[in-house]
Amino acid sequence: MDSPNSLTTVRAEPFNAEAPLTALQAPITATSLHFVRGNFALPDHDGRLTIGGAIANPFTLTLDDLCEMPRKELVVTLECAGNARLGQMPLPVGEPWTGNAVSTARWAGVLLSEVLEKAEPSADGVAVSFEGADHGPYHEHTDIHFARSLSLEHALDPAAEILIAYAMNGEPLNADHGAPFRLVVPRWYAVASVKWLARIDVLTAPFEGTFQTARYIYEWPDRPIQPVTLMRPRAKITAPAHGVTLRRGSYTLRGKAWSGSGPVTNVDVCLTGEGDWRAAELEPPAGPYQWQEWSFVWDLRDPGRHTVRARATDAAGNVQPESPNWNRLGYGNNAVELIYVQVQ
Amino acid sequence: MDSPNSLTTVRAEPFNAEAPLTALQAPITATSLHFVRGNFALPDHDGRLTIGGAIANPFTLTLDDLCEMPRKELVVTLECAGNARLGQMPLPVGEPWTGNAVSTARWAGVLLSEVLEKAEPSADGVAVSFEGADHGPYHEHTDIHFARSLSLEHALDPAAEILIAYAMNGEPLNADHGAPFRLVVPRWYAVASVKWLARIDVLTAPFEGTFQTARYIYEWPDRPIQPVTLMRPRAKITAPAHGVTLRRGSYTLRGKAWSGSGPVTNVDVCLTGEGDWRAAELEPPAGPYQWQEWSFVWDLRDPGRHTVRARATDAAGNVQPESPNWNRLGYGNNAVELIYVQVQ
Repeated sequence: MDSPNSLTTVRAEPFNAEAPLTALQAPITATSLHFVRGNFALPDHDGRLTIGGAIANPFTLTLDDLCEMPRKELVVTLECAGNARLGQMPLPVGEPWTGNAVSTARWAGVLLSEVLEKAEPSADGVAVSFEGADHGPYHEHTDIHFARSLSLEHALDPAAEILIAYAMNGEPLNADHGAPFRLVVPRWYAVASVKWLARIDVLTAPFEGTFQTARYIYEWPDRPIQPVTLMRPRAKITAPAHGVTLRRGSYTLRGKAWSGSGPVTNVDVCLTGEGDWRAAELEPPAGPYQWQEWSFVWDLRDPGRHTVRARATDAAGNVQPESPNWNRLGYGNNAVELIYVQVQ
Repeated sequence: MDSPNSLTTVRAEPFNAEAPLTALQAPITATSLHFVRGNFALPDHDGRLTIGGAIANPFTLTLDDLCEMPRKELVVTLECAGNARLGQMPLPVGEPWTGNAVSTARWAGVLLSEVLEKAEPSADGVAVSFEGADHGPYHEHTDIHFARSLSLEHALDPAAEILIAYAMNGEPLNADHGAPFRLVVPRWYAVASVKWLARIDVLTAPFEGTFQTARYIYEWPDRPIQPVTLMRPRAKITAPAHGVTLRRGSYTLRGKAWSGSGPVTNVDVCLTGEGDWRAAELEPPAGPYQWQEWSFVWDLRDPGRHTVRARATDAAGNVQPESPNWNRLGYGNNAVELIYVQVQ
């Protein structure tokens, strides 16, 4: 059982933890209850962000430098690519996340595109790599840094609103969330939002780092490998909690829904095993990158066990599948969530 | 959360309920905690069992008649064919059983084979139908009785040790468990063990009743329909409960394992997502038809979340699959059980 006032530890070292379900009922997740994902021990960061690679104008930024640039605030829902891994069978390797490796925070920082423009990327640049200060042994590697990349086009696009963030929910970033600064990539699974950001390099060839090409990829049993990119649509049930006992009468089911491919347009609820899906009330998005609220008034008449499923559809027409799309490393499981309650 | 001292209601009317996990730790399940499955309201039973159909010697038995025949006692594990239906995705129709629709009781009664011998089945008999006193509307039927069949060969086989049982754990059968008498078919999913038994008929053609041909059949997506017969091998984890918090140190995992195809020969435990299965300690069967105890001493060293899976293999070489064999009505899901614990 999770405690409503603290994270649930999934791994102690490095610290990985899920949000308690109750924390996901708020529009913004408290910083202390925002899920935490890390591959290595908390790093020492020297406070400098180096921009290099195939650029005309290499430079280094400090937190003070960033704070002097135009400040941008965005509310962004971040979800771990391994969220709901426990729902995949056979169980894949990796952290055993249930479904609470998702949270929403108000991030402040500067636009990555503005920093990159100042660096003057070379005409033959194709990608941008982002390296964290965090490092350590990893599988066959004795010591590697966490590093990821985006296409140069994506990184340079002001409309993508990728942040180099230095504040979270109105406070400086704390150590767990990437102090002194980190990337925040809206719409993408959180792996793209590199924490403890230390280096940005423009590359003239695709980035081949371990966390880009050997992890955070969909290894399908019957299809070519694909990279993990946008968050898939998902509706999360935040009330009631799985397995609780409810009294007969009216109960308002509540939850969140989000997708990296555009706003969620429908959340449907199924209260039987028969497949009769019914439309939930869905709030319009409060911003382009954050989850939406949904609710459904349920008339609980019969004592016994009742199942609840909720399913999101996004503006791009993507619908949650009813069973997981299994892949070897257990990413992107956005199968419809099933809970049950006991009605007295 | 289930209560250790009472059944968990899955449906109130007709009454369907699961055993609490703690009740499954005992070798014999207390009658009040034995799972209950029924398709119709509790019937009025007139106290008579009529043996008819293609036989030379039709007759009727009362409870007194049965009690005067040689008494046979057997410890039998019964499992609902829909047990663990909730683990199948997409969720099939039917009662939403988790994994606790299984129990073990000491049954007393007379051998079905002895009763049938007295009836002198005709030479062209092929099947025996068993009809309960329970009846009611069911899908397109306005009023049908619960009824199932076995092959005549199976029903007549003294070695199959099929009971017409009138006592459970040393007491007369109670209403929920089929008073005044019921069938108990060892090794088979419990659907075969017809409760409130009212009629036994020898048939010269296969039985075509609804509960034989339209329900309790495996409707595979890609294979021909099969009848639900023997219990598939399963290892159940009875301690710890899913999701509990444990302290670091030594913890003894415990559970039960059973199969309708013969004794369980191995229970293996996997404590990671990596697939390194390790042999658990497995007790030999205490009898031919009852679950076996298994245990595994686990050294809990690292704080955080840890998954546990347990997998049974039976003497016929059947092994639990790692993911459910989905079928439309959700029967026979014996996929490896996964729980996790939080270690402090």
